Amino acid sequence: MTLKVTVWNEYRHEKTHEEVRNVYPDGLHAPIVEHLLSEGMSVRVATLDEPEHGLSEAVLADTDVLTWWGHMAHAEVSDEIVSRVQERVLNGMGLIVLHSGHYSKIFQRLMGTTCDLIWREANERERIWVVEPGHPIAAGLGPYFEIPSEEMYGERFDIPAPDTLVFVSWFQGGEVFRSGCCYQRGLGKIFYFRPGHETYPTYYQKEVLQVITNAVTWAAPTGASPVTFGNRPSLEKL
Amino acid sequence: MTLKVTVWNEYRHEKTHEEVRNVYPDGLHAPIVEHLLSEGMSVRVATLDEPEHGLSEAVLADTDVLTWWGHMAHAEVSDEIVSRVQERVLNGMGLIVLHSGHYSKIFQRLMGTTCDLIWREANERERIWVVEPGHPIAAGLGPYFEIPSEEMYGERFDIPAPDTLVFVSWFQGGEVFRSGCCYQRGLGKIFYFRPGHETYPTYYQKEVLQVITNAVTWAAPTGASPVTFGNRPSLEKL
Amino acid sequence: MTLKVTVWNEYRHEKTHEEVRNVYPDGLHAPIVEHLLSEGMSVRVATLDEPEHGLSEAVLADTDVLTWWGHMAHAEVSDEIVSRVQERVLNGMGLIVLHSGHYSKIFQRLMGTTCDLIWREANERERIWVVEPGHPIAAGLGPYFEIPSEEMYGERFDIPAPDTLVFVSWFQGGEVFRSGCCYQRGLGKIFYFRPGHETYPTYYQKEVLQVITNAVTWAAPTGASPVTFGNRPSLEKL
Amino acid sequence: MTLKVTVWNEYRHEKTHEEVRNVYPDGLHAPIVEHLLSEGMSVRVATLDEPEHGLSEAVLADTDVLTWWGHMAHAEVSDEIVSRVQERVLNGMGLIVLHSGHYSKIFQRLMGTTCDLIWREANERERIWVVEPGHPIAAGLGPYFEIPSEEMYGERFDIPAPDTLVFVSWFQGGEVFRSGCCYQRGLGKIFYFRPGHETYPTYYQKEVLQVITNAVTWAAPTGASPVTFGNRPSLEKL
Repeated sequence: MTLKVTVWNEYRHEKTHEEVRNVYPDGLHAPIVEHLLSEGMSVRVATLDEPEHGLSEAVLADTDVLTWWGHMAHAEVSDEIVSRVQERVLNGMGLIVLHSGHYSKIFQRLMGTTCDLIWREANERERIWVVEPGHPIAAGLGPYFEIPSEEMYGERFDIPAPDTLVFVSWFQGGEVFRSGCCYQRGLGKIFYFRPGHETYPTYYQKEVLQVITNAVTWAAPTGASPVTFGNRPSLEKL
Repeated sequence: MTLKVTVWNEYRHEKTHEEVRNVYPDGLHAPIVEHLLSEGMSVRVATLDEPEHGLSEAVLADTDVLTWWGHMAHAEVSDEIVSRVQERVLNGMGLIVLHSGHYSKIFQRLMGTTCDLIWREANERERIWVVEPGHPIAAGLGPYFEIPSEEMYGERFDIPAPDTLVFVSWFQGGEVFRSGCCYQRGLGKIFYFRPGHETYPTYYQKEVLQVITNAVTWAAPTGASPVTFGNRPSLEKL
Repeated sequence: MTLKVTVWNEYRHEKTHEEVRNVYPDGLHAPIVEHLLSEGMSVRVATLDEPEHGLSEAVLADTDVLTWWGHMAHAEVSDEIVSRVQERVLNGMGLIVLHSGHYSKIFQRLMGTTCDLIWREANERERIWVVEPGHPIAAGLGPYFEIPSEEMYGERFDIPAPDTLVFVSWFQGGEVFRSGCCYQRGLGKIFYFRPGHETYPTYYQKEVLQVITNAVTWAAPTGASPVTFGNRPSLEKL
Repeated sequence: MTLKVTVWNEYRHEKTHEEVRNVYPDGLHAPIVEHLLSEGMSVRVATLDEPEHGLSEAVLADTDVLTWWGHMAHAEVSDEIVSRVQERVLNGMGLIVLHSGHYSKIFQRLMGTTCDLIWREANERERIWVVEPGHPIAAGLGPYFEIPSEEMYGERFDIPAPDTLVFVSWFQGGEVFRSGCCYQRGLGKIFYFRPGHETYPTYYQKEVLQVITNAVTWAAPTGASPVTFGNRPSLEKL
């Protein structure tokens, strides 16, 4: 069955920062879209400046897994759409949160914490270590992979302890970070994946795209019926 | 060091339902307060109808652990106070959520899920089984304890899987429930404890009070300094 | 890709107890085998009294997922074979431990605890509740399913807290039990599934077979290469 | 109540390697013992070459928390004593496993995995980051602390995912490691703490000693009665 993925991109840096446009002339989402298409998935793009941020009820209802990249305009995402996405995740849609999406309203909403961290833009090397090599999101990777230039994100990362921790990053400047974090919330699966600063060609890198494919596949809904709650008669004689 | 506990009670049923007032003439919080005092803790009461629901910045700053019981008026708790309590939990205050508090704004906010469940009021027996007997919250209990009459809460309970599951309830009518759930969120510890329907004398029961004491003690802050986030210089030469 | 499953059965009760033979004339493994075959899997049977208990190096190397049912003769399983199975699990083979297999050497070895529990044979009703409905092992199930007659297993179940708890059982006699428990150990996935006393037709029941199929599928290896350990040169200049 | 700690040291390197004796003239356990005494604990030392490795039934029965350092002679620890320690942990004794103790029989036994890892002796800097600052074992620490010279241990560390991950190490040579890992097994708490190669003065370092104190305190038994298992009559009428 073909997976239906909606790739959400804030899509602002690309319009306003030449440095970013040079790296991602068709938007930071473009290489992700191209890759997921090449994996046989059905892919749609949605962006902040579209009506309803491109995330109408119809679009979400037709989405198995949503990927989310945002950075400079988190505050412009409407609370109503955030609630809509949250509800859809709790009803089974997968959600892959990328890089600076850690500070998006939707991730904070689903985590219940600030999701804050320490950071530095200094063009440094990141080495992503696989700590749970038997997890499906690590399939096809070696013991680690390197990203030549990235922004640093470091601990303390203010998240709930992940249900499964798949990756831990090493940074040249001396920090570590929980870089691949799995969560189950309601019927939905969530994966946070650290890399992807807008000024680096991270989303063209083979291993990064492999992880995104793996994560989307892992986060696909199981087909569970919506759970119903409320008052119930007893099943046994009282 | 004396633990400072604030016992928060919605305190509405007691005023409007004679059945509840008969069981808890001084409020549902009264036996909890009395018990925590007898354990040598410093205890303050706060209720919905006080200014700021009794949870001013000053009160929260002076609270190690907050217990929360609410039911009929969750919607009347102001979002501003919810944010204040959330921030205080993330900065280290413990939070013990009791019974129908599962559906409070503060618990939903910290969990990121609906916290919904199935339920029934039918005067039935609950048997609370200890599944993690080495956990401090289970100290002093046997393999299980019984509550003669309680409201049923049943699975699916729409919460994130607890960091530690301490209790599971059996109900006469045929259901089970994850009744004692531990979470770490930010610097704060959270414990959800199921029993305590307002028409039953649950909060006079020895084992229930023992669990509340254990939970408050477990959830006490460790004295960790607030975590600071943001931009950082590198620790190693780049 | 066709999954290769080895269904291991102690296969002693069926030979010595008429009551069991009446329920499972071709062995307790027979309905499991038949079902997995009908799901398009490749299935092999292995039993205690075969040479190497049917679990030669060659058989294990050719097994994606092993299911394990044992009861009266745990002690007769050779430690050497237990070590072999453990090593194979750590290298990626899935393991589904059924019912009284909780007390098998291989489960105890992989868990590090006694795996003991309380129990009763009294022909009672078990109701298995789904507590994590978004997990792949719960796919296709409703909020719960019932087994009309089963042996009771109750808490405290002396296991490490599962990585994911999928099911909790309610028993007519008053107990609860963590009935569906997921673990990652090394590269391998392990699932413990409670039902299946030898005198009841449990393994003919549709929902039980559905769970076994789901679990086998979930526990399939990801294709990860064996992890290598040991001395390593530095990746950065020291 | 005074905590009773038994500090177990293999105590071989100190006798055979001058380099080690120079750092720890009274044994690697000496600074740990001195520190725990200064914290008001009751401390006993036990070593490999004593009868029963110093771990008689009487000693273990009188021990709240056992710390374990071993390296060159893991194989000489008798399986009988390993079983005895395991049983005592499952019945509530805390266990703090230090550094190369990762490869001890007792840790492997309790984990069910190989506990293998990658390593390097190259005199490099380790920076230990606190990822769960609200955990009692992190009390009194800043965001990280450094050890000027240590052996490197790197991922993949073949352990079950810890119940709580408290520390992650950064190494100068490019690796990361889950350095502070909490487990509940039976009634007992286990903490693995990475640092402590025998040729470096790690166990004189203030932060390392602070962590050991915190861990011992955290791992203290809760006073839970031994759990009993076996056949049980029904609690409800069948």
